[in-house]
This record gives sequence, structure tokens and C-alpha cells, in this order.
Amino acid sequence: MAKINENYLQLKSSYLFSEIAKRIKEFESKNSTQKLIKMGIGDVTEPLPEACMQALHAATDEMGKRESFKGYGPEQGYSFLRELIAANDFKNISPSISPDEIFVSDGSKCDTGNLQELFSLDSVVGIPDPVYPVYLDSNVMAGRAGNFSDGSYNKIKYLNTSLETGFLPNPPSEKLDLVYLCSPNNPTGAVFTKERLKAWVDYARQNKAIILFDAAYFAFIQDENLPKSIYEIEGANEVAIEFRSFSKTAGFTGTRCAYTIIPKECFGFSENGEKHSLHSLWLRRQSTKFNGVSYPIQKAAAAVYSEEGKQQVAKLIAGYMKNAQIIREELTKKGLKCVGGDNAPYIWVETGTDSWQFFDMLLNKASVVCTPGVGFGKCGEGYIRFSAFNSRENVEEAMTRISRLEF
Amino acid sequence: MAKINENYLQLKSSYLFSEIAKRIKEFESKNSTQKLIKMGIGDVTEPLPEACMQALHAATDEMGKRESFKGYGPEQGYSFLRELIAANDFKNISPSISPDEIFVSDGSKCDTGNLQELFSLDSVVGIPDPVYPVYLDSNVMAGRAGNFSDGSYNKIKYLNTSLETGFLPNPPSEKLDLVYLCSPNNPTGAVFTKERLKAWVDYARQNKAIILFDAAYFAFIQDENLPKSIYEIEGANEVAIEFRSFSKTAGFTGTRCAYTIIPKECFGFSENGEKHSLHSLWLRRQSTKFNGVSYPIQKAAAAVYSEEGKQQVAKLIAGYMKNAQIIREELTKKGLKCVGGDNAPYIWVETGTDSWQFFDMLLNKASVVCTPGVGFGKCGEGYIRFSAFNSRENVEEAMTRISRLEF
Repeated sequence: MAKINENYLQLKSSYLFSEIAKRIKEFESKNSTQKLIKMGIGDVTEPLPEACMQALHAATDEMGKRESFKGYGPEQGYSFLRELIAANDFKNISPSISPDEIFVSDGSKCDTGNLQELFSLDSVVGIPDPVYPVYLDSNVMAGRAGNFSDGSYNKIKYLNTSLETGFLPNPPSEKLDLVYLCSPNNPTGAVFTKERLKAWVDYARQNKAIILFDAAYFAFIQDENLPKSIYEIEGANEVAIEFRSFSKTAGFTGTRCAYTIIPKECFGFSENGEKHSLHSLWLRRQSTKFNGVSYPIQKAAAAVYSEEGKQQVAKLIAGYMKNAQIIREELTKKGLKCVGGDNAPYIWVETGTDSWQFFDMLLNKASVVCTPGVGFGKCGEGYIRFSAFNSRENVEEAMTRISRLEF
Repeated sequence: MAKINENYLQLKSSYLFSEIAKRIKEFESKNSTQKLIKMGIGDVTEPLPEACMQALHAATDEMGKRESFKGYGPEQGYSFLRELIAANDFKNISPSISPDEIFVSDGSKCDTGNLQELFSLDSVVGIPDPVYPVYLDSNVMAGRAGNFSDGSYNKIKYLNTSLETGFLPNPPSEKLDLVYLCSPNNPTGAVFTKERLKAWVDYARQNKAIILFDAAYFAFIQDENLPKSIYEIEGANEVAIEFRSFSKTAGFTGTRCAYTIIPKECFGFSENGEKHSLHSLWLRRQSTKFNGVSYPIQKAAAAVYSEEGKQQVAKLIAGYMKNAQIIREELTKKGLKCVGGDNAPYIWVETGTDSWQFFDMLLNKASVVCTPGVGFGKCGEGYIRFSAFNSRENVEEAMTRISRLEF
């Protein structure tokens, strides 16, 4: 009899987005006059940079000729792309990162979801609250989360955050084996300073823990003093794996390309205390269960690092960050306390009511959709998330409507 | 302390292809005159069909305009592609397969590797010998294989095959929970008849087992009486998951697109005997750990089903199958017993010596590289695999050289 992995039965159904969709549907069935503006979605809206499109066209033509046709590529990505990433993203901030420590993949969601496979099922896992739900769900599926009751899993160590902690977690007194950190954070838009990130690296070195550092939004950091990579912190190479993506940087959410850095100095341990290279384990994992990213897509990603590509990406990001500024300024003017939006495309807003109540009010009074913060974890209650991924026109119209509200 | 998943330490290092590379290197360092012809590789060589290229160009242009730009798509694939697959691949042979039972992915390697996640870790797994190594390795990583000694894992049920069984397994007397079947088989090129596949479906229904049916090479089947899909067998919808790919069909090994069919009638069971939809579990898995295939690539795959696409794909396959015929005929003329090559792009050849000895002889005397059968499992000893994925010129030259050999 084929028995299922019963850990899946411990998953809570993804209530958040289905509930949002349901409330929108109900609202629209009653109100047909005003255009709905969706300010909750973490998906890009602007076209692919011209340089990437040109590269995609050129690579497509290569696939049509026998001399330049590409079959299976290396599972860990083509050297041309890994070398560009090392030279452009790391050479200045952490020159020890070499191209063969970079694994190209089809998405950070896949990598953050799959990477836990390398670790023992009895690992103690620390997960910030609120945060991107894939870290938790992938560990629930693997069986590391235990049972769900009273709104939480009994084996997960929730790293609670609040306005006082700047919506980022500090290292706990207890020992963790694995820690997920996300900076710039989704959903709060908060970014670790070097000092706070150093505290985590020191903690991990002391406890032989591994930090899974999600830097998918690094390109939105404007303040030069804030770390864009965990490898800016001394010693991080020994204890940290970093996830990065072209999704938000260059508008690749529908084109699919990302990369994960696993330094060769980064080790896990077997029961008997022996060191094992996580780089080797991940290479083995990817060689067995992954077949590399589409060649034309890797060429499109490489174009992000051309001179034109860099300029076009900078323009894209500046556009979204201007949106963030407009949103943050308007909401602040209305007396709402905001975090994020200065070094991240998300604005995290204290509502003074519960998350869903504020969501309903915005929907009903302004036809504007946001994301209730409680959907990202218990500590998100009383907050909502605004996304800067939208056209300028939509952002301005939404803010005009909100400016007229009384609350 | 971050402890690793020690199941990874049970993996045997992938000796086969590194050993082949080593022997080629040694040979080339001593012999520089004759061009080496690689007849061992399971990767396509001919360019992408023109229809696919045109679609890729058009979709690239769509990504460059805000009105037609695509961000995140559905994790399980766009409807336009799933509908084409259902209408073209299944409507005539198993009309009950609906578009929403089709999950588009970036490769059958990923899907065959990841699908075991849905099942209990104490599942008893049946794996043919010889066969594509991902089925075994992904189960070793998960911990279902047990310990390795004397050339095999103690918890895996090896389904031994031989010339007598036509290099395909028959259902065993013992109970299995999960069974991997591959038809047309890699590496043996053998294809199940409807009768033999029915025996497996009946076995699975009787034992509430699940068949993981890898049909990556279905497009090479020439004999109309042979089943291209397991769903041609009555009752298979209840017990079988099928993997298919554009990789070999349409030359997508470097472009990356595949699909997996999970019928809604297909159930696994929890410890307490409750039925659970495998379709729902996989949807949850993919929604959590996967973000869909690149939009332009899905458009390229859809073009396989256009009139031009179908003609171009048919031509590609006819070309490779002509290669297979040439190889099989020449080797048979030389007195070697061959399986496969008539409904599959692989020819499985009995060598009369051990696999590596024959490999060395072909390399040294003809500068031709094949794949030693023992690399695919114990039962492959004494065989080699020839691949038809090559240019006609290379195939003819290799066969001319072999025709001159004395063995």
C-alpha cells in the first residue's frame, strides 16, 4: 500500500491569498464603478530590460543552428553566468566568493524550499515571524516542524519580531541548528545593519549553526552602509548560504533565473562529529534532481551584467523605489507608522486595528487591495504590507484615494 | 550544530561518467590521429524545431511590452500548454486525462527525483535493473534505500531483468508500495507491450501500489500496437503517475520543459487507511517549492503542437530512428545480439565480454565511445548502450569503423 508522507497533512492551507481573492470577489460583485488597484502583490509589473530581450533573441537563434545548439548544460549553471555573478556581485564586497561557489537555478523559491534536504530531520530550525512562508512550509513537509496547535508548530523556534526589534530578529539564547534570515525582509521591508548581521554570524559560528540568508531583494538597498550580502560580514563564509534572484532585480518573475551561494568553507556535521562540505552535498543534490536552467534564459540573465543591462536594471529599480517613497510618504502623512520602503520594495504599516479589519476598510472605502500582515505570521497582526511593484499611475491613484479617507 | 542528512553519505559516487571521461582522456593523450566519435551520450544533437524558435522569439517580444509582459505564472503551468498537451497527447488514447491533471515542469529529472517526497519514508520501493539512476539515488537521499553492501541497498527491491525478460521487469510475488517503470527503457531501449503493462497495472491495483511511469522516450515508439502511455491500460488512472518531456521529443534538453500527469483518481493512503489525493499533494508541493516554467519556454513547448511543429518534430525523430536502425543493423551483422533501437533511441548490445572490456576495445580499436551497461545496474554487466542521438555522418563513420573490427 502506497503510504503518503503524512507531514503534508500538518500543512495549514494557504489561507491568505485565497481569502484575499474571496473578499475581492465579494466586493466586486457589489461594486462595479471604481477600478480596483492591487497594491498587495509581490510581483513585478515592468517589461524585461531591453538588454535581456536582445540576449534572449540571440540565444534563441543559437539554438536553431547545429553548430551553436546547446543540449544539456551543467546542472550548476554555465560558467559564463557564474563568472559574471562573481565579478559583479561579489568581487568588491567579498572577493573570496568564486564562480564555482555559485549555483544557478530557476528560482529562489525552489532553492530556499529544497535546501533543507541537506540537513538532518531532527535539526532545530529558527524562523522569523513575520516572514515569507516557504521556509516554514518546506520544513513542515520534511517533518521538522512537529504538530500544529494554538497557531504554531511545536518544534519550530519562532524568532518573534516587533517594532522594537525593527521587525528583524536577534539571536536567541537557545541553540538553533538552522536559521532562516531574510534581508531586505519580506514582508516588513526591514534591512539588517552590519552590526546586527554580525551578531547572527557570531552566533552561528559559536553554535556551529547554518544561516540560510535570503537576499532576493538586495538590489533595492539604497543606503551604502547596509550589507547587500551576508558575506560582507567576516566569517560568514563558514556559516552562511545566500539566496539571490533575478526575479525582482531584473523583472525575471516570469522568466525564471536565480542563484545560490554555498562557500566551500561551509560545513555541516555528521552524528559522529565529522565535517561535511555543504557545497558538495548541494552539488550532488542538484546533479541528481535538477538539470540546469534553460540556456537562452541564462544568456538573458547574463545580459543583466552588460553596461546597457546595468543601466536598464538601475532604472527599473529606481522606478519601483520612487513608488515606495510615494507610498511611504503618503501613509506617514495620514499618521500611519511605516517600516521599510526605503531600502526595500515593501512598506510595512501599523494599522491600529487588526490586519483584516484595515484590509476591509481599504478595499471598501478606496478599492485598494493590500496584504494583511497576519498572513505572514502571528507577529504580523495589526500590520499590512504595501508593495511598490506597480505602475506609477496606479500608485498615485491609490495614494490619492487613501489621502481622502478618514481613519 | 547543523547536522547533515546522513542518507547522502550512502550515495555511491557517480562512477560511470567520470570513469568514461578518465579513460577517454588517457586514450586521447596517447592517440591524436583519429577523431573520437561519442556514441554513448543520451543528449540530442539536432537544432530546436523552427516552430519552437519562432514561438520563443514571439514570446520574448511579449516580455518587452508592459501590456503583454508576464510575471509569475501558475506553478503548474499555463492553461494554453496544458490544454494542448491533453488534446494532442491524450485525447485519442485516454480521453479522461484533463488539462488540470497535467503539471508542467522544467524537467522529468526534477519530477522523477522529487515525486518520492509525497510518500512515506518506510515505503517499499521497486526499481528495475538496469535503469536510469535518478530513481534509485533520489530514494537513497530520502532514506528509503537502507545500507549499501555487496553492490546493492538492503531496503530496495531490485527488479532484475535479462534477455529472457526482454530487459523489462515483471511484477514480483512480494508487495511493493512504489514501482518505477521506464518504457521505452533507458538504457535498454525495450518497450512494454500492453499485456505486460496491464500485468503491472493489475498488480498495483491489487496491492494499492503506485507506479511511477517514465515515458520520456514515448515519441520514439514506431509500432502502433505498443502503448505510448500507461493510461492506455484500463484502471491505470487509479495507480499511475506518468512523466513526459519535450527533451528528447523536440530537442529541449537545453531549453527545459517537461510535464507530469497525476490523475485525480490516484490516491495514496495514510497510516489509518484514509485516502489522500496525490494530485492535491503534488499541487501543494509544487506551489511551495516551485515557481513554474519560464513563460517564453512554455510558448516554445506549445509550438510543438502546431502543424509545422508536429512535422518538424516528426522529422527530428525519424532522423534519430534512422540512426538507430543503421547502428542496430551493423552491430547485428557483426554477430552482436541487440535489443532496442526499433522503438527507442537506445540500442542495448550483448558484448560477450564484460562491459568495460568491450568499451576499451571499441575505444582503442575504433575511437568510438559507448556506455558500459554495468553503469546502469548489476544486470547491465556484459552489455553496452549505443545512443542514436548523433549526426548521421558520425553514426555512419562509427559503424564503418566497427565493421572493420574483428571480434
